[in-house]
Amino acid sequence: MTGRPERLAGLLPDAGADLVLISKLVDVRYMTGYTGSNGLAVVGPDTRVFVTDFRYVEQAAAEVDPGYERRRDRGTGDLLDLVAEILPAGELRLGFDDSDLTIRRHARLRERLPERVTLVAAGGLVERLRVVKEPREIELVRTAAQVADTALAEILAQGLIGRTERSVADALESAMRTHGARRPSFDSVVAAGSRGALPHAQPRDVPIAAGQMVTIDWGAEVEGYCSDCTRTVAAGEPTGRARELYELVLRAERAGLEAIRPGVGGREVDAAARTVIQAAGHGEHFGHGLGHGVGLEIHEAPRLSMRSTDTLQESTLVTVEPGVYVPGELGVRIEDLVMVTADGAETLTSIDKELLVTH
Amino acid sequence: MTGRPERLAGLLPDAGADLVLISKLVDVRYMTGYTGSNGLAVVGPDTRVFVTDFRYVEQAAAEVDPGYERRRDRGTGDLLDLVAEILPAGELRLGFDDSDLTIRRHARLRERLPERVTLVAAGGLVERLRVVKEPREIELVRTAAQVADTALAEILAQGLIGRTERSVADALESAMRTHGARRPSFDSVVAAGSRGALPHAQPRDVPIAAGQMVTIDWGAEVEGYCSDCTRTVAAGEPTGRARELYELVLRAERAGLEAIRPGVGGREVDAAARTVIQAAGHGEHFGHGLGHGVGLEIHEAPRLSMRSTDTLQESTLVTVEPGVYVPGELGVRIEDLVMVTADGAETLTSIDKELLVTH
Repeated sequence: MTGRPERLAGLLPDAGADLVLISKLVDVRYMTGYTGSNGLAVVGPDTRVFVTDFRYVEQAAAEVDPGYERRRDRGTGDLLDLVAEILPAGELRLGFDDSDLTIRRHARLRERLPERVTLVAAGGLVERLRVVKEPREIELVRTAAQVADTALAEILAQGLIGRTERSVADALESAMRTHGARRPSFDSVVAAGSRGALPHAQPRDVPIAAGQMVTIDWGAEVEGYCSDCTRTVAAGEPTGRARELYELVLRAERAGLEAIRPGVGGREVDAAARTVIQAAGHGEHFGHGLGHGVGLEIHEAPRLSMRSTDTLQESTLVTVEPGVYVPGELGVRIEDLVMVTADGAETLTSIDKELLVTH
Repeated sequence: MTGRPERLAGLLPDAGADLVLISKLVDVRYMTGYTGSNGLAVVGPDTRVFVTDFRYVEQAAAEVDPGYERRRDRGTGDLLDLVAEILPAGELRLGFDDSDLTIRRHARLRERLPERVTLVAAGGLVERLRVVKEPREIELVRTAAQVADTALAEILAQGLIGRTERSVADALESAMRTHGARRPSFDSVVAAGSRGALPHAQPRDVPIAAGQMVTIDWGAEVEGYCSDCTRTVAAGEPTGRARELYELVLRAERAGLEAIRPGVGGREVDAAARTVIQAAGHGEHFGHGLGHGVGLEIHEAPRLSMRSTDTLQESTLVTVEPGVYVPGELGVRIEDLVMVTADGAETLTSIDKELLVTH
């Protein structure tokens, strides 16, 4: 966690806060190393406190960065109840994550704090730090991507025709575990034929038929870090129409990748890919954003979309995943996971992007 | 979903609301049938509206109860932005889930609503309905429990000594899938020896040794419904001390089960089991609540704990899971999933509770 508390403390003056309460679990993990399911942290220039409950005291002792003082709550059912006790004396502006704290928990926190403490909305500070990945983080995502790639290659080698979407998804998730994933980084999508027109289709107990396009969107989690990739493959010889849409999406994806470099807006990258699809008359068949950041969360900052206000930075990890979804007919999505480099993008996904025709 | 919107509408007058906005996904699922990852609903005496985004339009058409009008958002990135458009005319008190909406989303919602709409905190209304299970829900949890039981029996038959905690957890999760689980209902715990003193230990790549007690806490998810069970087994002949603690926890668990019936408080049931452990001088080694409700969520209302204010109702599903955790030495937890019946409790877990000694 070296340097992270210092970097976070450096953001506090601009946020109008003296200290910040970190309540979102993934942010707590990033700041302290703790991987349990209940914990919070308070960080300031001279404050590093971590709080958990009875169940996680030993785990916290093993995981939490020794720079933090570790406290156990009083069993009241909400760790926030201990916050008043761990704050330094005097008048204080305590930042809280307004994108995480619910109305009810915020009210409970306010009730328990003395008047000398002012609550200041300061959401997204840790997420902002998390955008730029450290070398170790990139290594973990790279490993996750390799695990996912290896698993898919194994599954495709066994063929798709006649297997159910569900069994393909199960085999893929099992292969990822075998190759070192802790778990899938999200529920795998395996969507054949017209089902591919649903961007987030859940796998069914329905066999894949010869001639269908099959969209597979899957990822691995390794030490908390996620990978994310999509390939659309042909189960048997595809139709000319399917090949045509595939080539269109592939051109859009490449245009998106080529637009990536530090300083470019998430909106511009989205536009680079979207323009290709719109020019082919399929604009209305691409209804989601082009991509998103990936790290400890499968979806995190920055966003690549029509409404994004983010600007790309070096050492950020993002997906590029245009799709064309023709309702009732078919869908094609191609997604790579890439790292923003000093002058462009390095693709972490290693699987070929020419249309793969499998048996 | 028959009857659910009517029952929810029946709670609105007491909540001081004319309509309620359902934002928590599991509540949206309960009310509408929708299983995707982005959706909300507005329900009132004469209002049934469901909203999702581009990615889930087809899925919603297939899943959402036809009693609901289905709307697609405008791609603004937050479904709440459409709420103003779907509200009936006139002055309105709109209930929202203050235990789900964050400070930021609440502010965004307020900003987009006309002045004629008053926002009223009304959290937990759907969770209150969910406490009493319908026959179909009980059937699904029963199936999930059977799947989990069958999977554990298979794993134990293969023996534990020499296998790593991680490989046992993986095999268990894989067996649950084979027997019909969609996924584990939570990350499995497999904790051997002194590791068992951590109530929520994560499985390690460490082999289980002869003579260790092994705590296994696992569950299956079937059609969204969860099961939850814990067994502590002996890998080879246990010590006298281990047997003694096991018998203690078992007596506590049975005392808890015997205390269950409609009208009894969650605090009383907790006390029935806790007293047994305290009397044996291990009160400080049992630092968590006795149990919790189970359904679409692995932890939901009601709570069985020292601070619970819940009262048990018939057809509610709860866990009873006392434990004794001796730091650095060992831990024992025994957990059953039970249904509150008219005059007691029916155990859904079928696995024997006498100490199992495996190889």
